[in-house]
Amino acid sequence: MHTLDELQSLYATYLNENSYKKEPISLYEPVNYILSLGGKRLRPLFSLMAFELYDNKIDKALCIAHAVEVFHNFTLVHDDIMDQAEMRRGKLTVHSKYGVNTGILSGDVMLILAYESLLRFKVPSSIPSLVHIFNQFAREVCEGQEMDMLFESSSEVTLAAYEKMISLKTAVLIAGALKMGAIAAGATESDALKLYDFGLNIGVAFQIQDDYLDTFGSQAQVGKQIGGDIVQNKKTFLILKALELGNQHQKQDLLNLFKTENVLLPQEKVKKVTAILTELNIPDEAKRRKQYYFEKGMKSLEEVQVMTEKKELLRKVAFQLLEREN
Amino acid sequence: MHTLDELQSLYATYLNENSYKKEPISLYEPVNYILSLGGKRLRPLFSLMAFELYDNKIDKALCIAHAVEVFHNFTLVHDDIMDQAEMRRGKLTVHSKYGVNTGILSGDVMLILAYESLLRFKVPSSIPSLVHIFNQFAREVCEGQEMDMLFESSSEVTLAAYEKMISLKTAVLIAGALKMGAIAAGATESDALKLYDFGLNIGVAFQIQDDYLDTFGSQAQVGKQIGGDIVQNKKTFLILKALELGNQHQKQDLLNLFKTENVLLPQEKVKKVTAILTELNIPDEAKRRKQYYFEKGMKSLEEVQVMTEKKELLRKVAFQLLEREN
Repeated sequence: MHTLDELQSLYATYLNENSYKKEPISLYEPVNYILSLGGKRLRPLFSLMAFELYDNKIDKALCIAHAVEVFHNFTLVHDDIMDQAEMRRGKLTVHSKYGVNTGILSGDVMLILAYESLLRFKVPSSIPSLVHIFNQFAREVCEGQEMDMLFESSSEVTLAAYEKMISLKTAVLIAGALKMGAIAAGATESDALKLYDFGLNIGVAFQIQDDYLDTFGSQAQVGKQIGGDIVQNKKTFLILKALELGNQHQKQDLLNLFKTENVLLPQEKVKKVTAILTELNIPDEAKRRKQYYFEKGMKSLEEVQVMTEKKELLRKVAFQLLEREN
Repeated sequence: MHTLDELQSLYATYLNENSYKKEPISLYEPVNYILSLGGKRLRPLFSLMAFELYDNKIDKALCIAHAVEVFHNFTLVHDDIMDQAEMRRGKLTVHSKYGVNTGILSGDVMLILAYESLLRFKVPSSIPSLVHIFNQFAREVCEGQEMDMLFESSSEVTLAAYEKMISLKTAVLIAGALKMGAIAAGATESDALKLYDFGLNIGVAFQIQDDYLDTFGSQAQVGKQIGGDIVQNKKTFLILKALELGNQHQKQDLLNLFKTENVLLPQEKVKKVTAILTELNIPDEAKRRKQYYFEKGMKSLEEVQVMTEKKELLRKVAFQLLEREN
């Protein structure tokens, strides 16, 4: 079994050795650019960790991990175009650097490159299952992104719909990464489903925590200005829960604060919204909901039919992801 | 063996029965919209025709044909965004009708749906090969589109590079559709390659003919205004050949006519460019080059180890495609 650092380093080496040197350069350079921006690159590691529960020849699984990372970065490239985002991880987004058309096309080729990477897996009989799992989460991530865009202009988003959206947009990729790793290593269908479930639930828990930290975290913790979601009028878990729990008066205040005609300074708006959220105990609600998903996920992990010690790394990573503020 | 009309009707029924009824509707409605715009839908038929050379259970191959058609329409959706095209087949393009963001995202999901369709093929052991063939032409189509965009702003496009570009942007899809059909039906690797080669060559021949007809065809034949490529300053086979063959004077005239600062009326520009092309015998050059690729393709088809009668339909379709003006 490898440590998280070792897996991270294994994948970083693989990524480095597999940069795209094809023609036309102008199509592939943006691919290498976005992949080099880094971040924690946790998603591919989920495939590796799941694989290692059943098979210690971890090198075999690197192409699957890579498919996950390339797919994830494809979504970043296209989402940044849709969101008109100029910066990512302190660098120019692909379309800001290379133009929108190249952003679209290099994104497209990345989706294909992800499938290509998956096809490098050395056991042909496993490939249909792997591609099947990949297809499903890939399609669901698109569905989640569409829901997210729809919610922006909708005034009737329910909490249930919101949790569905974050599950599709974020959590299914972690879940699918785990499931692919498990299936590739020969896990039973039942174990693969438990690992999927583990990933899905900690993914949703993570997103709820993300919503919480954006308003109630510290700048050091979050790495960006606190209150960004509020300034951007995002309907996060916090806001939707407040709209569910608030009285007529509090709801109206929130809705007024979220109206785009609002002329308050950003800090003032953040302060007023935060006050209402605190009044309604939304931080506790968020923690409780996060904990609900976290425990559901951990229970699924427990049920995976593998010696407890082997599952230690996955457990540790889940705790690291989700206990940042404790 | 089925006739072309029968295959067309089989696929049309399949397409109709497999419209996408998933949520969110706003993501899938554009998919059904573009797929319903029709056109001749020849590309999927190449998979069916190749399949039927070796296996008469044609229903099995419909999911492969569908993958080809969905992929092709994905490229149309994204290309129309890149080209800022408002109309296609007399109807609004997807992004004109539904917005650019939905165009990007529905296009993305179509690429995934194409893989999903491929995965429906009932013989799991063939799936790795099918996905492999699909990956290759899909990536190459993106490369061709990138080259096409690069050529727009480049003043040094060679004929060889142009033929490479049309081969990637157009011909590999026909070639790949044929190869997938053959492999799915259990053809030998050698036959599959011959069919690929047949498709590649008639694809390039078809594109050269397309360039020719855009300037020298009749409006009735082409279904659009003659000279569109010249008005849009497109560096087609005709222009690149003229730049290769022309004397200093003719070349300069052409380049001047193509300068965007040019203030001639469109009809006048078309007339002057056409005159130079005729002077240089470019129509004959185009026909000769088309014929070269056509014959190369037909030779590959001849070498396919299947009874001649069975290949009659593919031969007929190639002639229909390429002998429109004779």
